Amino acid sequence: MSVDLKQYLAQRRQMVDAALEAWLPADESGGVILKAMRYSLFAGGKRLRPILCLAGAEAVGGDPRRAMFCACALEMIHTYSLIHDDLPAMDDDDYRRGVPTNHKVFGQGMAVLAGDGLLTQAMVLLTDAAAVGDLPAERARQAANVVMRAAGHLGMVGGQAADLLAETMEPDLAMVDYIHARKTGALICASLEAGGILAGADRDRLSRLVRYGRRIGLAFQIADDLLDLEGDAETLGKATGADAAKGKMTYPAVLGPAQARQTGQRLVEEAVAIIAELGPPARPLELLAHYIMSRTH
Amino acid sequence: MSVDLKQYLAQRRQMVDAALEAWLPADESGGVILKAMRYSLFAGGKRLRPILCLAGAEAVGGDPRRAMFCACALEMIHTYSLIHDDLPAMDDDDYRRGVPTNHKVFGQGMAVLAGDGLLTQAMVLLTDAAAVGDLPAERARQAANVVMRAAGHLGMVGGQAADLLAETMEPDLAMVDYIHARKTGALICASLEAGGILAGADRDRLSRLVRYGRRIGLAFQIADDLLDLEGDAETLGKATGADAAKGKMTYPAVLGPAQARQTGQRLVEEAVAIIAELGPPARPLELLAHYIMSRTH
Repeated sequence: MSVDLKQYLAQRRQMVDAALEAWLPADESGGVILKAMRYSLFAGGKRLRPILCLAGAEAVGGDPRRAMFCACALEMIHTYSLIHDDLPAMDDDDYRRGVPTNHKVFGQGMAVLAGDGLLTQAMVLLTDAAAVGDLPAERARQAANVVMRAAGHLGMVGGQAADLLAETMEPDLAMVDYIHARKTGALICASLEAGGILAGADRDRLSRLVRYGRRIGLAFQIADDLLDLEGDAETLGKATGADAAKGKMTYPAVLGPAQARQTGQRLVEEAVAIIAELGPPARPLELLAHYIMSRTH
Repeated sequence: MSVDLKQYLAQRRQMVDAALEAWLPADESGGVILKAMRYSLFAGGKRLRPILCLAGAEAVGGDPRRAMFCACALEMIHTYSLIHDDLPAMDDDDYRRGVPTNHKVFGQGMAVLAGDGLLTQAMVLLTDAAAVGDLPAERARQAANVVMRAAGHLGMVGGQAADLLAETMEPDLAMVDYIHARKTGALICASLEAGGILAGADRDRLSRLVRYGRRIGLAFQIADDLLDLEGDAETLGKATGADAAKGKMTYPAVLGPAQARQTGQRLVEEAVAIIAELGPPARPLELLAHYIMSRTH
């Protein structure tokens, strides 16, 4: 990672963390449910989706701070999906980012509710007068709709459902594409698109953000699959080789690690070419794209 | 039930069912997740929350059809909460409305996702241009926010969490009030408030809808508790006495059945007095309030 990108990510992550604290503060009267929601929300996430949303707004000439409420909503949605994915009835994971998963600490029932609470709170944020500020109401509505479509049964939830059903099937490239485009790709893409919408991007610029988003969403999943296969547990904070053990549909499983890496690299290069047209404000998105696959070397 | 109310409810239920069909149509390419979502959404619900939302709009002089998207979102939220409540880690129910619960048919993982999908689809509806139509954007935003706050950790999800934790505690009136105001009361109240907001109600009328909603929300829960205790399984489509067996916090458990019925009756009378001030357009809400407790006689 370049020094520039490292500083940029650290600074943005700090901004996002502070905003999340402000939107979902600790409160003794909030009970166990709030504790469970905050436990996973502040369990050391990289804040990739919020950072992409802010960078998307910035890349089209907008003020990233005005997209912060949407960035926080995206992280709440991402966190809820991890809590539910980790449940015994789904991926059955005991650790994530080096700490016990939500249901290991709070029990399965409370973990389901903590996920529900985070998803709902994301929607509260996306429709809250104080959060939306003085943005044109139509922009806020459109951004919320894009995010929610990406999170629903035609997007992330649909991808997770397909993933669940595919555990008993033979790995197959079309199926892997289908699952990943929805399970991780849709929300990553929506993060960029929503940022662009909130900043008032025109059609061409919005389309660049979406096309960039599709490519890095897929590249990100390929990198994750490669890391699960080849990374070490200490760095990842979770068991490695878990996907293979569960017969998960992954790119390395279908294409082999070498070709999977090549595909990821090609997607990154395409993404960079698409976004570079937006000029200097899109520089962070260029660096971010390069960084995705570099983690796997 | 009066003939008038019976006809009114049947007609409104039909309108809501048709709108739900239109917003979440069957689609072979939608896969198992869509089937699971539709299985519970069309499992014979009374559509109480949507009907309250439409009646709320009507009571303040609005056109109920313009609140239909919000009414459908409310039913999706209610259905998702039932699916998650029925999970083995929560209430562990095998039957609801006479048919097997979602996880008995589709498995626990898919049931979690079906609930997630319905909650997300509700938010898609609340922010969808075609659904919102030509309503003032600010009204639509405010209604969506009221609904989502009521559904979240300060409302329904928080009530469910408290209910989960309370199973091991001694029944206590303050705790029963706390749980019910959130678990069922909040969304019922929000149904009326959102209907009023969408119809452009002034402050006084909105306040009447909210005060009416608080009372019938609580009365509705008391009636449900009484039916669970005294109703017969065939009429209810689920096992009776289940709450008592689980040591659930209910009004009959704390106050005894006679005083619980008296409390419910008092709430209904207060609700009717509050809403009657809105005149003839509020007549369906009067009849509905009376009907709630009459089910338990």
